[in-house]
Amino acid sequence: MYKLPTFCSMPSGVSLWPRMFQASMKLQNEGYGRCTKVSRNVNLERLQKDYLFPEISKRELQHLQKYPNAKLISLGIGDTTEPIPENIALSMANYAHALSTTGGYSGYGAEQGNQVLRKAIVETFYKDVLIKDTEVFVSDGAQCDISRLQLLLGSKVTIAVQDPSFPAYVDSSVIIGQAGDFKDETRKYQNIEYMHCGPQNNFFPDLMATTRTDIIFFCSPNNPTAHAATREQLQQLVKFARDNGSIIIFDSAYASYIMDDSPRSIYEIPGAKEVAIEISSFSKFAGFTGVRLGWTVVPEELLFSSGFPVINDFNRIVSTCFNGASNISQAGGLACLSSEGFGAICSLIDYYRENAKILVNSLASVGLEVYGGVNAPYAWVHFPGSKSWDVFIEILEKAHIITVPGCGFGPGGEGYIRMSAFGHRESILEASWRLEKLFS
Amino acid sequence: MYKLPTFCSMPSGVSLWPRMFQASMKLQNEGYGRCTKVSRNVNLERLQKDYLFPEISKRELQHLQKYPNAKLISLGIGDTTEPIPENIALSMANYAHALSTTGGYSGYGAEQGNQVLRKAIVETFYKDVLIKDTEVFVSDGAQCDISRLQLLLGSKVTIAVQDPSFPAYVDSSVIIGQAGDFKDETRKYQNIEYMHCGPQNNFFPDLMATTRTDIIFFCSPNNPTAHAATREQLQQLVKFARDNGSIIIFDSAYASYIMDDSPRSIYEIPGAKEVAIEISSFSKFAGFTGVRLGWTVVPEELLFSSGFPVINDFNRIVSTCFNGASNISQAGGLACLSSEGFGAICSLIDYYRENAKILVNSLASVGLEVYGGVNAPYAWVHFPGSKSWDVFIEILEKAHIITVPGCGFGPGGEGYIRMSAFGHRESILEASWRLEKLFS
Repeated sequence: MYKLPTFCSMPSGVSLWPRMFQASMKLQNEGYGRCTKVSRNVNLERLQKDYLFPEISKRELQHLQKYPNAKLISLGIGDTTEPIPENIALSMANYAHALSTTGGYSGYGAEQGNQVLRKAIVETFYKDVLIKDTEVFVSDGAQCDISRLQLLLGSKVTIAVQDPSFPAYVDSSVIIGQAGDFKDETRKYQNIEYMHCGPQNNFFPDLMATTRTDIIFFCSPNNPTAHAATREQLQQLVKFARDNGSIIIFDSAYASYIMDDSPRSIYEIPGAKEVAIEISSFSKFAGFTGVRLGWTVVPEELLFSSGFPVINDFNRIVSTCFNGASNISQAGGLACLSSEGFGAICSLIDYYRENAKILVNSLASVGLEVYGGVNAPYAWVHFPGSKSWDVFIEILEKAHIITVPGCGFGPGGEGYIRMSAFGHRESILEASWRLEKLFS
Repeated sequence: MYKLPTFCSMPSGVSLWPRMFQASMKLQNEGYGRCTKVSRNVNLERLQKDYLFPEISKRELQHLQKYPNAKLISLGIGDTTEPIPENIALSMANYAHALSTTGGYSGYGAEQGNQVLRKAIVETFYKDVLIKDTEVFVSDGAQCDISRLQLLLGSKVTIAVQDPSFPAYVDSSVIIGQAGDFKDETRKYQNIEYMHCGPQNNFFPDLMATTRTDIIFFCSPNNPTAHAATREQLQQLVKFARDNGSIIIFDSAYASYIMDDSPRSIYEIPGAKEVAIEISSFSKFAGFTGVRLGWTVVPEELLFSSGFPVINDFNRIVSTCFNGASNISQAGGLACLSSEGFGAICSLIDYYRENAKILVNSLASVGLEVYGGVNAPYAWVHFPGSKSWDVFIEILEKAHIITVPGCGFGPGGEGYIRMSAFGHRESILEASWRLEKLFS
């Protein structure tokens, strides 16, 4: 089933699994390398080896050994690189320093987040759609709340994901026990509905061909395809959820990158409050990837089949499994939403958007089939007929650039490469130049 | 099954559950107050209403309405009140401010935590017991890691808890689906083994009478009983786990309060690495309840029954369901473990310990049966023959002091009251004086 455990204490030379197993049983009697009698969680056993980013790191290392003088550029993991605007950083610094004073000290805050921050989130992002501050739960990031939502939903619900999609939806589904077995032929979990999103359907699933599920994870602007769903597409999605009695978990972590009139929140669509949860984040919006701050909206109108409000259960999950985001990070979040802070943030977003435009224009200029660069900080590049890993290797070998193979986001990403625009401008310019040279 | 949902949109006057249900069905057809077709998670349905702290808050409010001039003192929730030592707060402030510079900015860190902090935790707490820094996972607090450990373990394992105990062990067990039904007669979940801990067994479970479970949650110094298990007691516990092939989840969040030679880590007991995970926290140690920082140790030697290392699965859970503690909080953690920071922290701990001593001595001086005040920041007071809530009300009504009814920590806490020593000195002195007056 799985590889030989790296860490298992055993005499050297015992290298085959069945022998190791026998050895471990033997050792148990000797009181050395003994196993407990606790069975491994079958859901964890089903999880596919997380090879994507470790494999990329491994290849990066090998590349640097092969070309020790190469000036490697990373367009890989979507991590922010530009400093946080000073007024925001200073707000956190002042808050942290004041924790050493009697007046400035604070202990446990509300698990749901600072009331003032919840109000500011509503004021900034949800004023027109009439979300209440009590429906906003401050988190330590969208990825963490995905798992907390899975704890809320439990193992019995069925889920759908866009294919390709951010891996945490599928992985958290496997961990909680919704996904069933992984099928090597299809590279899919048997109980998950994969909604293919590609250029042929304008990166929006064919809902007529989509099986009803309880939960629909939907990310817009999408990571990795960079597509922001149009208003009409989201209207279709909300109608589909309402017709089926499904719950949409709408991931709007990249909403601040939208430039056109695509909705920035699912709640811009009438009727969405009764069928949608929205998760979002300060990470990509304010460079808070390391500071850790996000939020989740659960409208009061969202009800389970019995009429029981979902918000009540989410409140309980947050109170039991979480203890609030760091008070310093929350002070930073509040500063982001002040008029001065928000202005600085907008400049930061413009900077990364310009990066994305530069990258996409370069790739398009040499005739590549490239998506994104408008409403998202990613370029999603199609290499029809090629395998993602082969293209990854070619770009690394010939242009000394790290990218992400699209197949890491699901079978629908095969043949694609994702490039992140979260770099310094000079790296993006240099990378664009090298890519133009490589593909022209 | 459950109470009328507070939030359900419905015409006024519909106040009974069955009618509400019908109304909601009707409304669904009208597209108003409609329910989804997603069933509520049965595990969440099993969770008992979290009445303890909300009920305490409600009574506090009522009391203040009744006695608007009362000088209310809270010995309730165990929240730190003293400022963070300045050198530690300044380290966080400097780190936060530097995030606005190119050199000082950092994005995503390792999900497992900053390598330097992991090494410092080992150097400070685990040097003598040979834990490796790769076995330490930095978290945003012990409570959050309890739930992540439950995700790792899954619904099929059986668990034991001390009775009374910190409510998150039982609640997270119910949420993941291990606990079975709640029995009103016993105030216990049917699948959980409650290990009674009281004065008659020196606050250590009778292991001869304890049914074998896969997992044993064990907190020492204990919240709420304030008892630090002796070396001999922990040797018995480790032997019991080894004999049964169980895994101990050892909560050492209050270890820094130990004054005698009781073990501060389960790994001081030979053989513990093969049967124990340890969770701990900066919260009560450094006043970081709002800053959010903790850690979990999973030794390489700890193996599932198949020989698969538990650390591999925990690493996967942390990478998928968590994204690392805030980098600013981690900078604070590192400062706590510097020689200057550690000295300041020790003074802080001494301060709360002195509070506990004052409180316990007062209670003992008027003949009350009181435990704690030595190795923990709590007083655990026995009122034989009384109900916890009745005593709570009497203390509130007559001395204007908020406490915590022991029955909130499990059936074994009935007849007890927990008092927290995490207050300012003048409040503790005043509370002690009032309690002496009340009970003398």
